Amino acid sequence: MAELSRRRLFGAGAVAVGGAALGWGAGAVTGNREAEAAPSVVPFRGARQAGVATAPQAHTTFVGLDLRPGVDRAGLVRLLKVWTSDAERLTAGRGALADTEPDLATRPARLTVTVGFGPGVFRAAGLEERRPSWLKPLPPFAIDRLEERWNDGDLLLQVGSDDQVTVAHTLRVLLKGARTVATVRWTQRGFRRAQGTEPEGTTMRNLMGQVDGTVNPRAGTGDFDTLVFSDGAQQPWLADGTSVVIRRIRLDLDGWDELDRPGREVVMGRRMSDGAPLTGDAEHDEPDFDAVDAGGITVIAPNSHIALARSADPGQRFHRRAYNYDEAPAGEAVSDSGLIFVTYQADPQAQFVPVQQRLSDADLFNTWSTPIGSAVFAIPPGCAPGGYLGEQLLGG
Amino acid sequence: MAELSRRRLFGAGAVAVGGAALGWGAGAVTGNREAEAAPSVVPFRGARQAGVATAPQAHTTFVGLDLRPGVDRAGLVRLLKVWTSDAERLTAGRGALADTEPDLATRPARLTVTVGFGPGVFRAAGLEERRPSWLKPLPPFAIDRLEERWNDGDLLLQVGSDDQVTVAHTLRVLLKGARTVATVRWTQRGFRRAQGTEPEGTTMRNLMGQVDGTVNPRAGTGDFDTLVFSDGAQQPWLADGTSVVIRRIRLDLDGWDELDRPGREVVMGRRMSDGAPLTGDAEHDEPDFDAVDAGGITVIAPNSHIALARSADPGQRFHRRAYNYDEAPAGEAVSDSGLIFVTYQADPQAQFVPVQQRLSDADLFNTWSTPIGSAVFAIPPGCAPGGYLGEQLLGG
Repeated sequence: MAELSRRRLFGAGAVAVGGAALGWGAGAVTGNREAEAAPSVVPFRGARQAGVATAPQAHTTFVGLDLRPGVDRAGLVRLLKVWTSDAERLTAGRGALADTEPDLATRPARLTVTVGFGPGVFRAAGLEERRPSWLKPLPPFAIDRLEERWNDGDLLLQVGSDDQVTVAHTLRVLLKGARTVATVRWTQRGFRRAQGTEPEGTTMRNLMGQVDGTVNPRAGTGDFDTLVFSDGAQQPWLADGTSVVIRRIRLDLDGWDELDRPGREVVMGRRMSDGAPLTGDAEHDEPDFDAVDAGGITVIAPNSHIALARSADPGQRFHRRAYNYDEAPAGEAVSDSGLIFVTYQADPQAQFVPVQQRLSDADLFNTWSTPIGSAVFAIPPGCAPGGYLGEQLLGG
Repeated sequence: MAELSRRRLFGAGAVAVGGAALGWGAGAVTGNREAEAAPSVVPFRGARQAGVATAPQAHTTFVGLDLRPGVDRAGLVRLLKVWTSDAERLTAGRGALADTEPDLATRPARLTVTVGFGPGVFRAAGLEERRPSWLKPLPPFAIDRLEERWNDGDLLLQVGSDDQVTVAHTLRVLLKGARTVATVRWTQRGFRRAQGTEPEGTTMRNLMGQVDGTVNPRAGTGDFDTLVFSDGAQQPWLADGTSVVIRRIRLDLDGWDELDRPGREVVMGRRMSDGAPLTGDAEHDEPDFDAVDAGGITVIAPNSHIALARSADPGQRFHRRAYNYDEAPAGEAVSDSGLIFVTYQADPQAQFVPVQQRLSDADLFNTWSTPIGSAVFAIPPGCAPGGYLGEQLLGG
């Protein structure tokens, strides 16, 4: 089978390609001369797409697209061949083939281009039977206040780089290439700390100041690969692919301001200063959900964010790769901020939905956080030399 | 006079504070131990505000504010004292006094906060006689297609940092502090290459790929100080202050795409590859506007951008510190991009307007660039220890 030989082809390499260590801190990856020579290049080709296990760049923009009416399988193949060629060149620091501003392509700064498929791709291609059963909108949650302008989409472009000029140029090239096939549905621009401002591996803080993402499977360790990447059992074409859930979560910074620090810590179950659980001393200490204080009250409230996010079922875990957003405020507001909450998992219905349901039902933090957008995409596997993104689905 | 003693106080230091070399490349500034110990801190206090001569950070957001009705001189003084305290602490990497997220303040990444005054400040303070004669909207230019939502303002906040989280946090703190006094009128978010992706001193490229800003007085050299900073002759309080012109220029990337490279080079008068004038070999070569080709045609067209931007009058020069913008595209568009064209000069009417008039009249580049916003602010001098921004105007 094509999938199997491809997996064999990349085998061990795939972990290195996806590994957080690659790119920066090149010494950690032995035997990869290219990475050592050009530390700002994340390889594009591989069994898996880059941008999932890649350590988050300072900037990532997510673009949801709508297919134009009448686009068929052949049109999708043409688009994906163009995107593959463009992404391969741009991530390597070269102008795209039809690049009108190739001089902007010279600083990839860990550029990754990741492509996702919404349900519309399967409809347009006449391949409904190959659609993963989980590829549909998430069930509605009581906390949702979804706005159509942030929901769904037929295609996803995820473009990340430590340099925002590179993100802008790359997106323009890719969207020009898609012009006859698709239109932009939504654009979500996210950022984290700039490369180099914090030690590698530092957990991000969101714009509420919370240490956000402590419990996160680490690429290249433990069960990361089985949690995140499909084994192809349900849909053979998806082996080494994954799914992405993109939830736009508005954070009510004004309301949050009314809480003092101890109040905030009760809500989250963690200290604001360093993210340590209220029963621990350091960020990565295991929380003790049974510990009680002198009055017999649990130290970590059972409806705190970390208590509800945690599951006894190790299968209810996923890989988080969130970004802050901060758009221009309107009217009397002084900010319009939040989180682009992004997770990757082999099966969002099995892994993500139960956690979101628990949080929706009871999380103290819901008072200050509101999901206003939701989208799910299948992330096809990577492509081998000569192949194109999506070939496993569309080429077979 | 207070102004004179303040100038004496800071004298030589002012150049170092404003110098492009400070902060990064600390070795270049001798005798400044603080800068060497904390290379990401740009000193806040000084004869001149930071953010003007400071080497441009990767991110700068410009916010225009409207004063609420009834705000008077005392209200302005209170606001500026709060802003001064907040900016001093935040630029040093400490939380503001009333900071609800002090943990976000730890990575200033060359943070600068620069405050500007529109005409409304002088009206509100009852100090019309201290308003510089040039502090008013620029005259209309034939090329202008100004949209009210990008024009003017009573106050300006300019917040720059190499880290976008720091920009977001700083803006939120400062805008919260202004809530009872002013509302946000417009927000313009600009970016350049990330810190470290290009050698220091590299001229930026805009999103059309042009090397943009080659001819620019360099901080600490030649007549930079007299071009940029006021000598206080017209308005004594403004000594060591300056003016900023913020023009939002939409770039028609789609139209630009229709030009081939030689066509683009005729329009600009410079090579796309490296920004060298068409009569030269390197970016900073002096253009020869008289050189003709074999057919007797001038090599650099007289209506090219560089020919018209140049003046025989050395007083028609200013300090450029432009940023790219790239907002979410709407409808069928694949990008909404342009330039936040920002210039500092002692007198915009004398220095900026004649150049803009020449460009408006004839510049070939006008076909692809459209001013859609325009604002002018007075940038008051810096503040000495114990003083506050604007004290020279409001405190006297």
